[in-house]
Parts: sequence; structure tokens; C-alpha cells
Amino acid sequence: MSERKLIFDGKEKQIFDTENPDEVLIHFKDDTTAYDGLKRAVFPGKGALNCNISALIFDNLVKAGIRTHYIEKVGECDLLCRKVEMIPIHLIVRNYIAGSTADMLGLEDGFKPSNVVYEFKYDNQGLGDPLINRHHAVALGLLTYSELDEMLAIVSKVNDVLVELFTKAGIKLVDYRIEMGRTESGELVVADEISPDTSRMWDAATNEKLDKDRFRLDLGFICDSYRKILERLKGVK
Amino acid sequence: MSERKLIFDGKEKQIFDTENPDEVLIHFKDDTTAYDGLKRAVFPGKGALNCNISALIFDNLVKAGIRTHYIEKVGECDLLCRKVEMIPIHLIVRNYIAGSTADMLGLEDGFKPSNVVYEFKYDNQGLGDPLINRHHAVALGLLTYSELDEMLAIVSKVNDVLVELFTKAGIKLVDYRIEMGRTESGELVVADEISPDTSRMWDAATNEKLDKDRFRLDLGFICDSYRKILERLKGVK
Repeated sequence: MSERKLIFDGKEKQIFDTENPDEVLIHFKDDTTAYDGLKRAVFPGKGALNCNISALIFDNLVKAGIRTHYIEKVGECDLLCRKVEMIPIHLIVRNYIAGSTADMLGLEDGFKPSNVVYEFKYDNQGLGDPLINRHHAVALGLLTYSELDEMLAIVSKVNDVLVELFTKAGIKLVDYRIEMGRTESGELVVADEISPDTSRMWDAATNEKLDKDRFRLDLGFICDSYRKILERLKGVK
Repeated sequence: MSERKLIFDGKEKQIFDTENPDEVLIHFKDDTTAYDGLKRAVFPGKGALNCNISALIFDNLVKAGIRTHYIEKVGECDLLCRKVEMIPIHLIVRNYIAGSTADMLGLEDGFKPSNVVYEFKYDNQGLGDPLINRHHAVALGLLTYSELDEMLAIVSKVNDVLVELFTKAGIKLVDYRIEMGRTESGELVVADEISPDTSRMWDAATNEKLDKDRFRLDLGFICDSYRKILERLKGVK
């Protein structure tokens, strides 16, 4: 990896070009931010934990036959991935309703709905990443109705795999964010990361928060709980 | 109508029981409110205009075979309707993107999307009538996925009828609100009103606002433009 050219420098991740024009290197930083970057800290070891958790999750998705951008983990903080054109939509999957969504709907924090709730957020910081629906996404020209259906079908399969994995690990997968990209041939694949930075993960027995909400709410050093998530996921047979 | 018992007293409409337990009388008031009731005025004649416009629209829907709560107009400000259990969802239909939705999506006011944009708002004043999606509606237990699909199929047919009607009247039907109810037998029907109070209607040639935005934005006496809408709709052959 001698010739790494930085092509994206995010708040918690960096993306580098590689010698292969079809591949990128995703580097997980120890930097941690919340509230749109207003709250910041550095937790040594967090990048490696998120990288390992994401790699383990992508391994499980690939084994289940789900197309992702993931190729392999190439360092403690680095994933080698296929280069994709990101779709500017954050797909939120909610197995439980928590946080501001519970407030918005007038439900108690941690409410278990009879269905899985999928949400689209328009990835546009200038507009505040607004909650949109499928019709807005098409009106914005982001993708077609059939691509949206395909995306939801993929994410539904992702959720089946992850709920089974996390249940075995004794963790409630409350909600998480999925981003998708298009390969050069136009194929939709799961991209970005799936980690406690972009999810709510609660201990199944105690409802203790194990995810980034610990940082948002000042509940203590996050690496201990991120490590707990990784160890539990690794223990799943 | 000697024994009218008020069963709902809204900001701009009242609903009365009738001698027939399956029917109600909807009375359109001259009262006009905006910004969640913070701006108020009384425009003599507005109630009759909205009542006549709603009746004309419901007549067109019924003729097209669409199930509605509408039975007949029984006075200048009164519609006789079937009694239904209202579903607490406002369905917004957008043929053009205007107002706060244009701001939310970063589009110019009056943008014409390639698709028709449908939105659900949870009719819950305490929560500020939030924009929700179909998954939220099911999670809230408001209705099932198949009822949502049935609702959208009905509203799509409503929109075809109304876009044709308004186009012939030289009016852009920018957006409007549909509310639906369930009859005692569980049948979904179009209910409430469809009027310039709950719509954006622009002159097709000049984009002049003919609807309640005139009141919101202090563009002048609204009855003149509501009368223009009624006369143009009446002139459609």
C-alpha cells in the first residue's frame, strides 16, 4: 500500500485509492463525533474495533449470498473494498423504535413494532439529511422505484442475517444505517460500514446501551462496550 | 334537519349528527386559520365556496366510480355524508413540489417531478402531524400494509380524475390533502373535504396562487380566487 491517495476524508473514516482502480481502502479513525460534528473526541482503539466489527458483519453477509463492496480486511483499521458510486440515501432499519424516532411517533423508547421499520434519509448535509419517502427519492432523481424495491429486498435479507447473528450474541440490534452503492456495471451492493458508530445495539438482558449513544449521552468510555460487541459476535457459532 | 347535534367542532368545519345514524352533516364555516391556528380570519362566503367546490369534486369522483363518503349537498354550506371512522393519516398528493417540501428537498418552488409524490402525515396535533412513511404507519398500528396499498391505489385514481378536471379548468393542481375513513363494513372511502383550504391550486397560465396560500401570504381577499376556482370547474364540460 505504498501509493495511497486520499480521496475522501470524513469525520470518522478516510477512503484511499489503491493500485487497482476498481478498489479502495477504507480506514477507520479513532475520531468520534456526534450531533453533526459538534461533539468530538478521540478514543484510541475505536477505529480498529469498528473495522473488526464491520469486517465480521460483512463476512456474515457475504456468506449469506448478499452482494457487498467488501473484499477483505487488510490491516487492523483498514478494509479493502470494491469502488462504488454511493447512492445519497441513508437507509435506516429499525427493529425497535428508539431515540428521536420514538419521540416523533409518540412511542416509548425501545418499543417493539410488529413490523420492521425502514426509513430513507436524503444524504444531504446542507438540507440536514431529511427523512424522505420513496416518492421523494424518485422525484429527486436519486433512483427508480424498481431500484428502491431492489434495495429494500436486499436490506430485508441483510436484516434477517443480522438479527439472527446479534440475537445469538445476546444483543438487541435496535436500529442501524445501511448505505448502498452502484458498481461500474450498475449492480447495487451494500457499502460503507455497519458498526456501533452507525447503530443502536443494546444488551439483550439489561438493555444497556453498547453503541455510540454511550458517547452521545456521556455513559462512559466507548471502547469497552465496542470490544464487548466484537467479542460476543466472535463467539457466535 | 331539526335535531342537529354537534359531534365535532373544528377550526373550519363542524360535523353534526342527523336523524339517520349512518349519516352526518358536514358544515363549512367562513372561519379561516393558518399556521396551526395562529393566524385567523373570517371571510363571509368562504364556507359556501368550499362546500360547493368539494361537492363538485366529490361528484366527479363518484362519477368515476371512486368510493367516497359523499351523499349530496343539502345547503349552501352543508354536505350530507356517510358516517365513517376516520383514519388518522393525512395523505398528501403532490403533482408539483411547492412550499416547505421544496425547501426540505432543495428543489425550486413549483418543481415538476417525473412521478406523483405521495406523503403520509400522522394526524396527531400533539406530535405536530409529523411526516411518516408506510412502515411507521404500520408500526403505529394505524393500518396494515395491504390497506396502505389499497389507499394508494384509490388515491392514484382520485389524482387521475382531478388532474384531468383541473387541467381542463386551466388550473395546476399543485398538491392537496386526502383523508380517508372506514365505513361500518370496513370499506375504505375518500372522506373529509377537497377544497382550496387543503390544496395548492395555481392558475395554469400565470402560476397565480388561487388557494389558501393567499391568506397565509397576505395576497388579498381569498373569496375572489375561490370563486374563480368554482366558476372554472363548473365550466368544465
